[in-house]
Amino acid sequence: MNDKPKEPYLLTPGPLTTSASVKAAMLRDWGSRDGAFTAMDASVRIRLLDIVEAGDTHVCVPVQGSGTFAVEAAVGTLVPREGKILVLVNGGYGARIVKICTAIGRPHVAYEVPEDQPHDPAELSRRLGADPTITHVAAIHCETTSGILNPVEAIAEVTAGAGRALIIDAMSAFGALPLDLRAVRADAVVASANKCLEGAPGVGFAIVRRGALEDAAGNAHSLSLDLHDQWTVMERTGQWRFTPPTHLIAALDQALNEHAEEGGAPGRLARYRENCRILVEGLCRLGLETLLPDALQAPIIVTIHNPADPAFDFSRFYDTVAGRGFLIYPGKLTKLPTFRVGCIGRLGAPEMNAAVQAIESALEELGVTRRGRTAG
Amino acid sequence: MNDKPKEPYLLTPGPLTTSASVKAAMLRDWGSRDGAFTAMDASVRIRLLDIVEAGDTHVCVPVQGSGTFAVEAAVGTLVPREGKILVLVNGGYGARIVKICTAIGRPHVAYEVPEDQPHDPAELSRRLGADPTITHVAAIHCETTSGILNPVEAIAEVTAGAGRALIIDAMSAFGALPLDLRAVRADAVVASANKCLEGAPGVGFAIVRRGALEDAAGNAHSLSLDLHDQWTVMERTGQWRFTPPTHLIAALDQALNEHAEEGGAPGRLARYRENCRILVEGLCRLGLETLLPDALQAPIIVTIHNPADPAFDFSRFYDTVAGRGFLIYPGKLTKLPTFRVGCIGRLGAPEMNAAVQAIESALEELGVTRRGRTAG
Repeated sequence: MNDKPKEPYLLTPGPLTTSASVKAAMLRDWGSRDGAFTAMDASVRIRLLDIVEAGDTHVCVPVQGSGTFAVEAAVGTLVPREGKILVLVNGGYGARIVKICTAIGRPHVAYEVPEDQPHDPAELSRRLGADPTITHVAAIHCETTSGILNPVEAIAEVTAGAGRALIIDAMSAFGALPLDLRAVRADAVVASANKCLEGAPGVGFAIVRRGALEDAAGNAHSLSLDLHDQWTVMERTGQWRFTPPTHLIAALDQALNEHAEEGGAPGRLARYRENCRILVEGLCRLGLETLLPDALQAPIIVTIHNPADPAFDFSRFYDTVAGRGFLIYPGKLTKLPTFRVGCIGRLGAPEMNAAVQAIESALEELGVTRRGRTAG
Repeated sequence: MNDKPKEPYLLTPGPLTTSASVKAAMLRDWGSRDGAFTAMDASVRIRLLDIVEAGDTHVCVPVQGSGTFAVEAAVGTLVPREGKILVLVNGGYGARIVKICTAIGRPHVAYEVPEDQPHDPAELSRRLGADPTITHVAAIHCETTSGILNPVEAIAEVTAGAGRALIIDAMSAFGALPLDLRAVRADAVVASANKCLEGAPGVGFAIVRRGALEDAAGNAHSLSLDLHDQWTVMERTGQWRFTPPTHLIAALDQALNEHAEEGGAPGRLARYRENCRILVEGLCRLGLETLLPDALQAPIIVTIHNPADPAFDFSRFYDTVAGRGFLIYPGKLTKLPTFRVGCIGRLGAPEMNAAVQAIESALEELGVTRRGRTAG
């Protein structure tokens, strides 16, 4: 990419590196109730719907805060207090939805599988059949704990077939991994500005089926996180209920322009796939071992086993790679010692090749020669 | 001020005009778990405490979202489910706290007075004496519905004297109006980056008495808005629980530099007072009538009675003033037709004089000659 920032590249699941032009869009103050802002905001909301082909069926409700705020808003608004949600867990973000349900008082049950495995749609079907009190299912599209791609299409088919509603946390997938809500039946898809859309962090959104949202009045556990209230006010006035993060919306507006220029989600996915290929092949060439087989690896973030060599120390490794201009991420697996390297954001082949080189020289500097995973 | 933006000046209660250098601070991407960011974030939190002299007694907990998110977080975290909060209402932001309490299920009662009057501390004392089940009081420092300055010092004295805890919504006051938590006893002061601190909107914070926060584990109605959880994780790791709005924190960091350079809250207040004086005197010279007497008028935002002349139409007036480079604000009073003009943000005497001129020529263009308020 041609707009190289002076600061390190962020090879993380977010915040991630954005383009200079996305950041430059924040160099203006907007009156949040002025027509210039509300027109830009409306255009952002429509383009977000279009990315998942949901303009005819769903509405886009923006939410200030991190992605978790938007996920909590969707669960709290859509799942009635007397509802029950089955959460598909194979990593930290599924576990976080369980934590949200506990905090906000929504009956819930988890279907948990190991962090390097996807859920079995047949088992989901069995569990939904066995418990008719389950009203909703929550699934993570790409679980960045491991980087695994979960089969949301199959999950949606089973969930809809059982007459239950689906909430998809598509945080790190939206705008790159394919998702067509004409084919995938979901009541809500939740994401944020700062993942594959390459906007700035601090604002998220929920794409919600209009009928589901209309039925959700009074459900929410919160005023700030009430998507029904936010939506009805926006429908009536064209304005946010409370002060919007105007600079972040301007950044998202520009990020969506650049997303479209790249060919939308297919174009962005192609770049991320190439980034991921360069990264995984490069790491393997260095003797490192990745966690997931190619079939389960989403081109978003890669989990790598810590090298068996006792000379490997993550903190020193992090600092050494950072000194070469790339910030990587600690592992998040509950059982295995790992680290993570992201491949999304305003990065292309030159940056990914340079990242592999930075990792190689850091391993050499630390004297890490036995680079495969620890046995057992 | 010397960094005139190309876009209109925002004479609103927020979003407001920020300096070019505050916006330029957003031209960098930060890794949210990297030491460079966590050091900046820690410095921001300490400086926010220092502004209200609270470093020895309170902690600063940041919250993503608009100011309302931070207010809801403070009420939900600090008021136990079996507590009861008395809300002092004389405008829309007091009413919003009542709405929050209803949404999140906190027992509450309102002490409401007209929008152009402050609360009577003696009556507050009487009400607290009459209802020993009240555990907390909530007050708005400057209620931007009218622009009124509420007597938080007297309210704090009565509340503390009655052994109850005080939550101050200091949204549009923090960083300009005097507030010293060594003298004013409050369990929480809530504000946001984009009012008198002149940062960018999308992040708020609560200054919370350490002991009150320690006692608040498990109170919150929400995961995202749980200040106790946010604080304990930050204490342990130095990091936010969930992705922080890194660009907005960088903007706030720069805004705090500029706040200190201006002489802190006293310096900023002096500029805002002068802005307010120019505005109020100028409007009166034009024959317009302001709502509040000087003693009740905070130098934050001024409410003006709509002119009696039938040629006055707010929408046309807004557009005409906007065409001259200034965005003003509609009124928010429940009973009287008014409009509002703010005097905070990166604005000084030249801009305020120009704003008065813009209002004058807009009134002339609309043919508004009878400019006093409608009788009755």
